Amino acid sequence: MTSLRIALAQIDTCVGDVDGNAEAVLAWSRRAADAGADLVVFPEMTLTGYPIEDLALRASFRRGAEAALQRTATALVDAGLGELAVLLGTVGEHGESDAAAPDDRGLPTNQAVLLQHGQVRSRYDKHHLPNYGVFDEFRIFTSGDRTCVVDVRGRRVGVVVCEDIWQDGGPVAQMDENDVELLVVLNGSPYEEGKGHVRAELAARRAREVDAPVAYVNLVGGQDDLVFDGGSFVVATDGTLLASAPQFVEHLLLWDLPDAGSPLVPGELAPPLHADEEVYRAIVTGLAGYVRKNGFRSVLLGLSGGIDSALTAAIAADAIGGANVVGVSMPSSFSSEHSKDDAAELAKRLGADYRVQPIAPVVDAFQEHLALEGVAEENLQARVRGVILMAISNREGHLVIAPGNKSELATGYATIYDAGSIGGFAPLKDVDKSRVWALARWRNAAAAAAGEQPPIPESSITKPPSAELRPGQLDQDSLPPYDLLDEVLDAYVEHAEGRAELLARGFDPAVVDKVVTLVDRAEWKRRQYPLGPKVTALAFGRDRRLPVTNRWREP
Amino acid sequence: MTSLRIALAQIDTCVGDVDGNAEAVLAWSRRAADAGADLVVFPEMTLTGYPIEDLALRASFRRGAEAALQRTATALVDAGLGELAVLLGTVGEHGESDAAAPDDRGLPTNQAVLLQHGQVRSRYDKHHLPNYGVFDEFRIFTSGDRTCVVDVRGRRVGVVVCEDIWQDGGPVAQMDENDVELLVVLNGSPYEEGKGHVRAELAARRAREVDAPVAYVNLVGGQDDLVFDGGSFVVATDGTLLASAPQFVEHLLLWDLPDAGSPLVPGELAPPLHADEEVYRAIVTGLAGYVRKNGFRSVLLGLSGGIDSALTAAIAADAIGGANVVGVSMPSSFSSEHSKDDAAELAKRLGADYRVQPIAPVVDAFQEHLALEGVAEENLQARVRGVILMAISNREGHLVIAPGNKSELATGYATIYDAGSIGGFAPLKDVDKSRVWALARWRNAAAAAAGEQPPIPESSITKPPSAELRPGQLDQDSLPPYDLLDEVLDAYVEHAEGRAELLARGFDPAVVDKVVTLVDRAEWKRRQYPLGPKVTALAFGRDRRLPVTNRWREP
Repeated sequence: MTSLRIALAQIDTCVGDVDGNAEAVLAWSRRAADAGADLVVFPEMTLTGYPIEDLALRASFRRGAEAALQRTATALVDAGLGELAVLLGTVGEHGESDAAAPDDRGLPTNQAVLLQHGQVRSRYDKHHLPNYGVFDEFRIFTSGDRTCVVDVRGRRVGVVVCEDIWQDGGPVAQMDENDVELLVVLNGSPYEEGKGHVRAELAARRAREVDAPVAYVNLVGGQDDLVFDGGSFVVATDGTLLASAPQFVEHLLLWDLPDAGSPLVPGELAPPLHADEEVYRAIVTGLAGYVRKNGFRSVLLGLSGGIDSALTAAIAADAIGGANVVGVSMPSSFSSEHSKDDAAELAKRLGADYRVQPIAPVVDAFQEHLALEGVAEENLQARVRGVILMAISNREGHLVIAPGNKSELATGYATIYDAGSIGGFAPLKDVDKSRVWALARWRNAAAAAAGEQPPIPESSITKPPSAELRPGQLDQDSLPPYDLLDEVLDAYVEHAEGRAELLARGFDPAVVDKVVTLVDRAEWKRRQYPLGPKVTALAFGRDRRLPVTNRWREP
Repeated sequence: MTSLRIALAQIDTCVGDVDGNAEAVLAWSRRAADAGADLVVFPEMTLTGYPIEDLALRASFRRGAEAALQRTATALVDAGLGELAVLLGTVGEHGESDAAAPDDRGLPTNQAVLLQHGQVRSRYDKHHLPNYGVFDEFRIFTSGDRTCVVDVRGRRVGVVVCEDIWQDGGPVAQMDENDVELLVVLNGSPYEEGKGHVRAELAARRAREVDAPVAYVNLVGGQDDLVFDGGSFVVATDGTLLASAPQFVEHLLLWDLPDAGSPLVPGELAPPLHADEEVYRAIVTGLAGYVRKNGFRSVLLGLSGGIDSALTAAIAADAIGGANVVGVSMPSSFSSEHSKDDAAELAKRLGADYRVQPIAPVVDAFQEHLALEGVAEENLQARVRGVILMAISNREGHLVIAPGNKSELATGYATIYDAGSIGGFAPLKDVDKSRVWALARWRNAAAAAAGEQPPIPESSITKPPSAELRPGQLDQDSLPPYDLLDEVLDAYVEHAEGRAELLARGFDPAVVDKVVTLVDRAEWKRRQYPLGPKVTALAFGRDRRLPVTNRWREP
């Protein structure tokens, strides 16, 4: 026997684009073969994209995916890649379990398929269907009940899919007697701050169970509100990292499984990212994917001179290039001079298309008839900005992006339908205000370290936040200080602690009551926010489902 | 033995309002006792409201519900109702299964509890957790595995919860050997057109399985986008309806289980509703519940003179009274005289607060700076109306409601953030345009039959639909005729048929391609729509989950 070269193809698929995904399989298989690989492994549900949600329930889609699979098998041979073993994911019409009858509910499976020599050599149906947080797989798939060990050039390779390794007693536990020499895992594991360590420890545990290295290939790229960070790796039974791919980029990670008895040799090892850089790049990846996959080329946002829109613009410039960012300053009569200067300076540093559109004439026209006062007057100004952005978007075809952050979204401290909440994508939706500042500082420091001009004007970072909708208005007049607010939000929202637990932690009861009341009342506003990339354990989006009408109040 | 009097308390709970729901249990238990009942049965998850979604994951909420249960047991005794057997629903902390260990996932159960003499006499945990359509119970609950038969005055009463009777081989199948004399089912079964027959047939099947009558008590009232229609009933093993409650109202349905061996005697039987009346009242119930449970007293909408806003206003008047409806006519330079007349006439007939706010001055102020043309100019006019409504809502506290219908929502034939799509609730969100006309005609005919003035001006029903955003504009210039469009939408969206199936049905390929393209592109717009009551099998809301970024195109 000789060593087996494994290629982990960490690619960026798109949901529903079965033809495009099939082309990517062909192109990356060629790269893998050119690099001498015997086996190339793709992420979970390669051909269909992931997650497909209720597309799984559409028969024409399932037939389309199966046809693409058969075409891919043939195309690989036609391209001279028939020898290469290609392991990829797709939707399985009825599953290939011994219990061959389709699921009671008539549901398909989440399937891994091994192609070689123009044939489907093996199919494996995912056993464990995650149904928590962002996952709804019990809704759309039926479970497999058979393990899968394939022979690749005489070596025994076990195959499982994603959640299968997150549950004890799953297919991996049934596999150890098979004398597996390598376990490969096809994943669509969404990014979450600090999740990399959890994955590596888990994989090492499964490696010990089968007494063989585990090769973990993960999807990369943005899909709606999910960001897949890649970070594919190979880990040994003792937890040693044998190879690792960088996060947030497509990558072909190679690793050689040595002859039986020979020592394991580490391959490429990507350096880990700084915590702030990881989150920043997750957001950039999420926005870039959303823009590209939805056929946009440019984005449009209001630039207030404040930190939220400044960071959002910087992220957009990193995602799609500053020249594809359109920033509109829409000063009101309450906007300060420094705000306008900061907005202009930001746009200049980013190389963005910058425009100024004062809102006073339009606000005056409304006010002549409506004569609004107080909060209604403040909100009117904010909504006029929303209309201006949507109008420019209609005219020029940019995607409007919403700079609202998680702290204001959580507390409802925002005008619904204003420039901070309208549009198609909200990059900071899952980033609290404290983190907004930290990311801005990290981005500027990274630029300085690289000898470049920091993109975000320092005064946008240092000045006290204000909506500037009335004279002298400051966020801190309406909200607790952000560092305290964000700490309470983390406990109340992310960790679902009750009022009693919050008080036991020593938080001021007045602050607790204020935050709890604001959060409970803001559910409706949160539902109106556009999608945004998920970066923490619990985002306001797919993975927080609460009734809008809910009278539960913390005792 | 004497006969056993059963009271089915078809009540309207509110999610999270454990104190209010507990009070309702007490009040309706008293009514039941006053009517001579031995057993009163409440709907699924009585104390917590239903569906509680991720509130189930909050420990403080679960503790609050358990405390309310214990208080209720005591309060019943204090009120002299200790003899009455009270069967109600709540969230169960860990389940009461023989396999007493909490679920792996640490999840609670969906529980039925029998209270009597101030004690919890029995607990039953729902076995089958629905996880399709609008249901996500696998996400938040763990299953029970024990059947429950309780003794009430010497009679053996089987207890199950909702989905338990929708699956073959469930707890009912395990129960037949127990010689159950009556099977009671606690339900939170959302309204869906024509579902009443399905429920009755299903219950009769289970009655045959246990060889005993089935008493089915259902929740009533609006909860977010779900409408519970009540319609509680008792059915015999041969399918004979022994008692039935009216739909869409709280009701105490009494029925006597006779001595063993005595014949079953039918009790109260509510007459069935006409199909259009049923849907109309479902929407009224959904809106009324949303307004009241969210603490509003009035609603606000734009009145264009068209059929959608006319029907929506009529529904609102039926839900909360015409005097609590504020209608704003916001004519543009393209609005016809008849439109303004129809809007005024409608408001007069409903007794609504009617205002006129021309949009030209504000549109001109925008246009002086933006100089928009074409669709961008049309959308600008529409969005100015949205801003006016939100401003009045801010000033006066009305809930803004959105009259957009399902056909335009499905195809994206609507301006996002206009008066048809902004606000908190969209009564016609799940009603296609053909049905909009049918409901308007039914409402007018019902008024005429009752000797009242029909609420909707005839010309709003008969004139060709137009957005009136440019001269001579008609919906039919951009869309297929609505009767055809709605038929294709029903096949493509509700029944998930592919392009091939649509063509095989004989639809014009050009129409099919147009509709399919419009629907596939409208996903983002649909996500921005406010909640609306679900009245068909498949609504755009909770029960249609598709990726926004999706490149799948029907072959």
